[in-house]
Amino acid sequence: MNPVLMIEKKRDGGALSAEEISGLVRGYVSGSIPDYQMSAFLMAVVLRGMDDTEMRAMTEAFVASGDVLDLSSIPGIKVDKHSTGGVGDKVSLILAPLVASAGVPVPMMAGRGLGHTGGTLDKLESIPGFATRLSEDAFVKQVASLGCAIMGQTDRLVPADRKIYSLRDVTGTVPSLPLICSSILSKKKAEGADALVLDVKLGRGAFFKKREETVRLAKSLVSLGNGLGIQTVALLTAMDQPLGRAVGNWLEVRESVDVLRGGGPKDVRDVTLALGAEMLVLGGKTSTHREGIVVLRKLLQSGAAYDTFIRMVKAQGGDVSVIENPENVPPAAFGVTVESPSDGWVAGLDAFAVGKISVGLGAGRVRKEDAVDPFAGIVLQKKTGDLVRKSETLAVIATNKEAVVEESKIRMIGAYQFSPKPADVQSLIDCRIDAKGESAFPFSPA
Amino acid sequence: MNPVLMIEKKRDGGALSAEEISGLVRGYVSGSIPDYQMSAFLMAVVLRGMDDTEMRAMTEAFVASGDVLDLSSIPGIKVDKHSTGGVGDKVSLILAPLVASAGVPVPMMAGRGLGHTGGTLDKLESIPGFATRLSEDAFVKQVASLGCAIMGQTDRLVPADRKIYSLRDVTGTVPSLPLICSSILSKKKAEGADALVLDVKLGRGAFFKKREETVRLAKSLVSLGNGLGIQTVALLTAMDQPLGRAVGNWLEVRESVDVLRGGGPKDVRDVTLALGAEMLVLGGKTSTHREGIVVLRKLLQSGAAYDTFIRMVKAQGGDVSVIENPENVPPAAFGVTVESPSDGWVAGLDAFAVGKISVGLGAGRVRKEDAVDPFAGIVLQKKTGDLVRKSETLAVIATNKEAVVEESKIRMIGAYQFSPKPADVQSLIDCRIDAKGESAFPFSPA
Repeated sequence: MNPVLMIEKKRDGGALSAEEISGLVRGYVSGSIPDYQMSAFLMAVVLRGMDDTEMRAMTEAFVASGDVLDLSSIPGIKVDKHSTGGVGDKVSLILAPLVASAGVPVPMMAGRGLGHTGGTLDKLESIPGFATRLSEDAFVKQVASLGCAIMGQTDRLVPADRKIYSLRDVTGTVPSLPLICSSILSKKKAEGADALVLDVKLGRGAFFKKREETVRLAKSLVSLGNGLGIQTVALLTAMDQPLGRAVGNWLEVRESVDVLRGGGPKDVRDVTLALGAEMLVLGGKTSTHREGIVVLRKLLQSGAAYDTFIRMVKAQGGDVSVIENPENVPPAAFGVTVESPSDGWVAGLDAFAVGKISVGLGAGRVRKEDAVDPFAGIVLQKKTGDLVRKSETLAVIATNKEAVVEESKIRMIGAYQFSPKPADVQSLIDCRIDAKGESAFPFSPA
Repeated sequence: MNPVLMIEKKRDGGALSAEEISGLVRGYVSGSIPDYQMSAFLMAVVLRGMDDTEMRAMTEAFVASGDVLDLSSIPGIKVDKHSTGGVGDKVSLILAPLVASAGVPVPMMAGRGLGHTGGTLDKLESIPGFATRLSEDAFVKQVASLGCAIMGQTDRLVPADRKIYSLRDVTGTVPSLPLICSSILSKKKAEGADALVLDVKLGRGAFFKKREETVRLAKSLVSLGNGLGIQTVALLTAMDQPLGRAVGNWLEVRESVDVLRGGGPKDVRDVTLALGAEMLVLGGKTSTHREGIVVLRKLLQSGAAYDTFIRMVKAQGGDVSVIENPENVPPAAFGVTVESPSDGWVAGLDAFAVGKISVGLGAGRVRKEDAVDPFAGIVLQKKTGDLVRKSETLAVIATNKEAVVEESKIRMIGAYQFSPKPADVQSLIDCRIDAKGESAFPFSPA
């Protein structure tokens, strides 16, 4: 098996066999195929693409490179949720305990923030002691006993994806539909999920900016997931502006707790309920989405979801006192108000820009090895559609880096667009995509 | 200077600045940019291309990575010839001493065979003792004293090209017009040539198979050469069937000597004269091609070109006795006749197939590190346009590998096409390309 012939085949627009793809992945993981051949292959994939058969073979080769968790001892349909990444997207923190409270087991393997997007693991780690590195055994036991667990990718799960992702990151080969899809779904297959709800973000803060590309991504993911035997459904949700008001790790945990206690911003709650209802239907708990919403809303109001969250934090070693009394946690050294330069309506708030500013404040990473400041971030007081008066507070920024305060204020003002007339707000849920294709979202969670 | 940003720019179809390209090349040669980033960049170049400005910047960055020979102490216009590679193409061996005999200095940096094509250095090394690794100083002195020298690329000349070529070879990134052009012309610039005649091969045995692609290659090379300050002209010459009758290193040296003594196959002589006439015009020795042909023909007939060849062999440490008495050199262990399976006219003889068979016999390399058998090869008795009778000899194959004899015979028969009618022969010189564009070749060398 000569890797050069496979690189050439892909370079010339050909399709590789499943055997060729698995040979390539195995050879790379074992070290017999060097980085420089894999990176040339990956660039050829970025520019030439892969068909559905190749993408599935790639995903299966990734899965075969490591352990696959066996959740068969846990009764019921195990359902996970995955987001393609956004700004202020804290939905996983709420959704895992919420859906688990409804009796659907949620095994969740989550990621870290990179670039302008945040990551679930970073958010959870802002809770002192919270461990995201679980053994596979501990993870399975926790899902069995508590109904949910959230952990990072272990060394033994999908090592091929980890090694290839690191290479993509430094070779300009990240933006490729088949590579993105196989990376995401190999992890879901390895964690043992039976069903999956995808939250595919749409808008300025999303990975792909255009609706057409985003729909294609969602359709690819749904088709690949179903092909792998994971029942998969996707919702396209709004990411033109950040989700909720809080952006930044600890700030987002606090907002998640607000939602878990029955409050919180309406957009966060609505997206969570919509995704959760899909999970209940896939998990066989309710037969309709509408029913699912009713069940979930009760679990938020009763405190059951919050209790499960507290139990999950405890089980993973986190300090629950900060959750119970968040007002006792000292904020970042600098808390600065961003004031509106004029009267008007907020016509837009650029999620990508807010994500970047938040990284600058210390809340995210430019490079993978960067440390994250749990207390840095932004709380948005005004969002798209709001009326604002000159000098009124638009947002409050929190940071421990005095040097970036002034620049961040200016950049925050630039992230807002104003209009003399009330502006349209992007619809929260754009559409639903399942194996049958794209359809309008069938109900309003509100 | 972040290499990932440059990879991304090329991946997305953008054009890099001269500064970015030279940074990339310098970083790669110094080791600060790893192989895996360069190979991803090269694949992006293969699939996205480079514009003329980028290609020139790449070439100049290659040249700047090492020494540039100073031939200014040698009077006259120094003219080199470069072939894009073919089967049976021994023209350099004849042309360097021939043109030097006419008073035009020829500094020639040549290459080795790879794949189905032969290489000038391998051919010369079939002469016992012939040294192709000269010091830069020895090379310059020999061009000054003798009028010509042929050597391989030294470690100090264009190291960037050498390092990048090795990487391209193992990453499927060889077939790229800008990469091919910058590799060729950086070496010509570094060797100090003032003018250059390109022999761009056309047909089944050539690098690109289609005429359109070959014309594009020739135009790119001519435009890049002129842009670098090297007066450059190209001839597109026939490579549908092998050039001459001999394919294989020592066999080709013998055929070259035949031409240098005033004999040899007509096609080899004609291509040599056509290229040589271009070199005399570029070197300012004759004002027309027709005049050049007359001068060169005299130098072949008088023995002056042969004398220069003998002096070059001596100067580079070669044993001239094998040139003077080639009949004393023992042939390969197996000399086997390939007989015609039928009566008819030879309608075609696939140069690519013959090149591959010759490699199998031991005359060439599959991998760069393979050794070459100087005595292996093929002598063609029948070529396109010839009438042949059943059982008449088509070719004689020579090898020291008994195991490949029978298979090679069968493959040789397969390389011939027969027809019941006389067939057309590909015209030897397809066209001439200079800075003004493509034109018909202005004269018949015959």
